[in-house]
Amino acid sequence: MADPVEIERKFLVARMPDLGDARRSSLRQGYVTRPEDSVEVRLRQTDDGHVLCLKSGEGIVRGEREVTLSAAQFDALWPQTEGRRIEKTRWTGPLDDGLVYELDVFAGDLAPLVMVEVEFPSEEAAARFVPPAWFGRDISDDKRFRNKALAIAGAPQPDDDADG
Amino acid sequence: MADPVEIERKFLVARMPDLGDARRSSLRQGYVTRPEDSVEVRLRQTDDGHVLCLKSGEGIVRGEREVTLSAAQFDALWPQTEGRRIEKTRWTGPLDDGLVYELDVFAGDLAPLVMVEVEFPSEEAAARFVPPAWFGRDISDDKRFRNKALAIAGAPQPDDDADG
Repeated sequence: MADPVEIERKFLVARMPDLGDARRSSLRQGYVTRPEDSVEVRLRQTDDGHVLCLKSGEGIVRGEREVTLSAAQFDALWPQTEGRRIEKTRWTGPLDDGLVYELDVFAGDLAPLVMVEVEFPSEEAAARFVPPAWFGRDISDDKRFRNKALAIAGAPQPDDDADG
Repeated sequence: MADPVEIERKFLVARMPDLGDARRSSLRQGYVTRPEDSVEVRLRQTDDGHVLCLKSGEGIVRGEREVTLSAAQFDALWPQTEGRRIEKTRWTGPLDDGLVYELDVFAGDLAPLVMVEVEFPSEEAAARFVPPAWFGRDISDDKRFRNKALAIAGAPQPDDDADG
């Protein structure tokens, strides 16, 4: 569900970088509903707070509604997302050419998965990007590594994502 | 979803009674989810406040979770229940023998439906109950008049509930 104007590439991580220059944030996201349900009900906790999001894509009522929750409200509802969660720490740090990396270290059921994303100002910049040595396989086009797929299906098996 | 120990009878209403002795309360209830979804997400507003309720009946996570919402949170989510709502005013008043009636006057899509319920201390009391003249047809066993059925399927057509 990336914003259509974002130009990103996503990679696995061969080894952890020095995080001395990186800024830390954390995210928990879980789905109350299942993918086949008529509506998506998502809980999301970031450093900015807690949010409940309803999303529906069919019928007369369409669109997205979001409300801020208190920590207590969030905690009361969170157990309902068991088995459909993403929990990660994001490290945001600098690369060459003014680029920025976002390194996601997953916790919970998805550990020890680690991924890194880079956003580019143009398709040309994305195409000519030379990944640092600590980057692993390019998974930009691998739908299994999207947030929702990870939450529902879990991390791809090691056999599946062996670097070619 | 009545509590199993409740012994109730439910009727249509032939004519409105004198409500001078009755206490008024109001209820709005709407379903974010559809009956075939894996979880039930319900919004409910009573004179006591606003509540979000999650209910799931299968898998590892089971049961019911409820949180109190602010009016603003409720109002932000309520549009998502369009087409799956009950809105009613309940009048609670006295009958003979210490019994109490609960007269539900529906608004919104379910208007002009009116139903009345009586709760009894025993099955014997329920069986020997003689309805007042203002009561209509007994719909105790008619599933179409249950709250959830009304919310999802709407009020039964006049042809369907013509009194025999």
